[in-house]
Amino acid sequence: MNKVLDTGVNNVRNVSRYIFGQNCLAKLAEILSTHCTGPTGHTVYFVDSYFRENGSLIDRLPIEESDQVVFVSTVDEPTTDLIDTMCAQILSERSTMPRAIVGVGGGITLDTAKAISNLIGNGGRAEDYQGWDLLSKPGVYKVGIPTISGTGAEATRTCVMTNPRTGAKLGMNSDFTVFDQLLLDPDLSATVPRDQYFYTGMDAYIHCFEALRGSHRNVIGDAMSIQALDLCRQVFKSDQMMSDVNRANLMVASYLGGCAIATSYVGVVHPFSAGLSVVLGLHHGIANCIALMALSEFYKEEHDQLHAFADQQEIDVPKDICANLSEDAFENLYKATIVHEKPLTNALGADFHNILTREKVKQIFSRM
Amino acid sequence: MNKVLDTGVNNVRNVSRYIFGQNCLAKLAEILSTHCTGPTGHTVYFVDSYFRENGSLIDRLPIEESDQVVFVSTVDEPTTDLIDTMCAQILSERSTMPRAIVGVGGGITLDTAKAISNLIGNGGRAEDYQGWDLLSKPGVYKVGIPTISGTGAEATRTCVMTNPRTGAKLGMNSDFTVFDQLLLDPDLSATVPRDQYFYTGMDAYIHCFEALRGSHRNVIGDAMSIQALDLCRQVFKSDQMMSDVNRANLMVASYLGGCAIATSYVGVVHPFSAGLSVVLGLHHGIANCIALMALSEFYKEEHDQLHAFADQQEIDVPKDICANLSEDAFENLYKATIVHEKPLTNALGADFHNILTREKVKQIFSRM
Repeated sequence: MNKVLDTGVNNVRNVSRYIFGQNCLAKLAEILSTHCTGPTGHTVYFVDSYFRENGSLIDRLPIEESDQVVFVSTVDEPTTDLIDTMCAQILSERSTMPRAIVGVGGGITLDTAKAISNLIGNGGRAEDYQGWDLLSKPGVYKVGIPTISGTGAEATRTCVMTNPRTGAKLGMNSDFTVFDQLLLDPDLSATVPRDQYFYTGMDAYIHCFEALRGSHRNVIGDAMSIQALDLCRQVFKSDQMMSDVNRANLMVASYLGGCAIATSYVGVVHPFSAGLSVVLGLHHGIANCIALMALSEFYKEEHDQLHAFADQQEIDVPKDICANLSEDAFENLYKATIVHEKPLTNALGADFHNILTREKVKQIFSRM
Repeated sequence: MNKVLDTGVNNVRNVSRYIFGQNCLAKLAEILSTHCTGPTGHTVYFVDSYFRENGSLIDRLPIEESDQVVFVSTVDEPTTDLIDTMCAQILSERSTMPRAIVGVGGGITLDTAKAISNLIGNGGRAEDYQGWDLLSKPGVYKVGIPTISGTGAEATRTCVMTNPRTGAKLGMNSDFTVFDQLLLDPDLSATVPRDQYFYTGMDAYIHCFEALRGSHRNVIGDAMSIQALDLCRQVFKSDQMMSDVNRANLMVASYLGGCAIATSYVGVVHPFSAGLSVVLGLHHGIANCIALMALSEFYKEEHDQLHAFADQQEIDVPKDICANLSEDAFENLYKATIVHEKPLTNALGADFHNILTREKVKQIFSRM
């Protein structure tokens, strides 16, 4: 494996600006007035619905009278239809276009904010832009404020949506999807439930080691993955995985992991995890952990590490998820996994079908 | 020391896009036509004068008939007057404004490209913008293509110039100074002389450990510094420090080091190094190495490491530079060092004057 050649030679779009530090949320008003260069107008806030009832986050946002606040349910990952409906609703409530969009939450909320920004800027329907580089114009100026760490959604050029008609779970992959501004405030992840903190944090761990174990590598992505993994290990080996310092560590691991994956691909875990999400509706973080538990033959060291982390943190990774599934369900799991050709090729080579046969894939799922 | 709180809470401006990989220089024409959104016009290339006579780099740049090529001398670091003169010259040679600026070279060349871009965009004289956030408009779209690694100039928000009237060595510190695009092509550093490769590479090593040993820290800068240091160690401990892989490693270390330092400050080495540059005209990279050689009382481990790297790579770090200097010269060295309050406070605390007394500073310089 040549460590130097980036076979894709991606031109990577960075987040334009980021601010990191405890209580940096307090800078949001100043940032909106300084850096948002769009026409005058209001701000639309997308906020994880958890914060509607819990804590004081809402009171700390600089919401003005003309602004709109949309609470985003995180029960299901967004569909293209939901994005279309939300977008129409937002536009119908005001006579002027929004000047800025602010997403405050986890991957689903941040992806929703990105998708709506793109859709307002480009018109049409969300499904028109599912794929690669289909947007022709920048969206509305957008700020990402993660409240849970691991997915890397704050740093990536995609926003994942499911199309209910085609079943495709595919993002708007575009440079225009990248946030203009991030606020990385580790105070905001203090109230995350421990198990969710673990599952979501493991997403960074998993996509980083998958990138490092693949063939599509480059020194810059490797450097960011290595550092993100090191931070994850500090967090999950700590007897205070949710201390101030460790929440900061995991927030940085998530950002660096998102940056790293933008230069590379994932491996075997994510396709199996996607199968679990599509067929069984499991959330991405927990599905990753369940998948890795059954993939020790591909990632022995990391599988054992996950076991050790989960034991130490007393986190339960669900078992027997696929115990009583029908043959049809297994077939659907197989299809929803094997469709991910790029990561599987990255991990196993172009002949991955010979390794991951239908029988083999079903066998692996049956261990979950 | 609190690892979480970033005392400054900087809003960090990232380079908008970067592309990394062997021969990514070949993508320059495509990038200029795709991403440069300015009005039609020509491109101005700033190229390290080394490439006027050496190698085929010039032939590989997509220079068109209407474009301008300026060879940048790297004998001295740029003055504000030189920037003014170059800018006037460039504008006088064409009836239209340039659409893009491309800098191809080391820190001096990249800083020259940044400064000219800013000056064309903002008018006036270079010295008007020496300081913090004095530019009010973006400059001309600019691309940075480093051909030597270490200074981090490709990633930072400054471009260092000396004002011949005031003696101030100060950059245009501004978000507008940050490059719109980087091409990080490790092929381009293949022809760098070994000693220069070493001295310049050590700049990344030095500013990263200074940041990590200071009080103004944050997890994200730390993560990038740690990874940059690790890459530097791989390079300088290798018996092939200029192999393809190691040139790639050092190029990434330089970029990450530049990103890291944007969130933090340097320490004791850089102020002493600045003294050597201002008073004795030494270049930044070699001055850093000379300074660190005399600063073991502050950075024992890193001082010993520099010795070990230099021994292994058979690189000579000049000695007895200050052997025969006058009292006046020592006084000037003292003044040019002690003026750097921010890094010295970062390293030694607000009472750094009590540690670095006039006598002490002269003693340290007399060891160089």
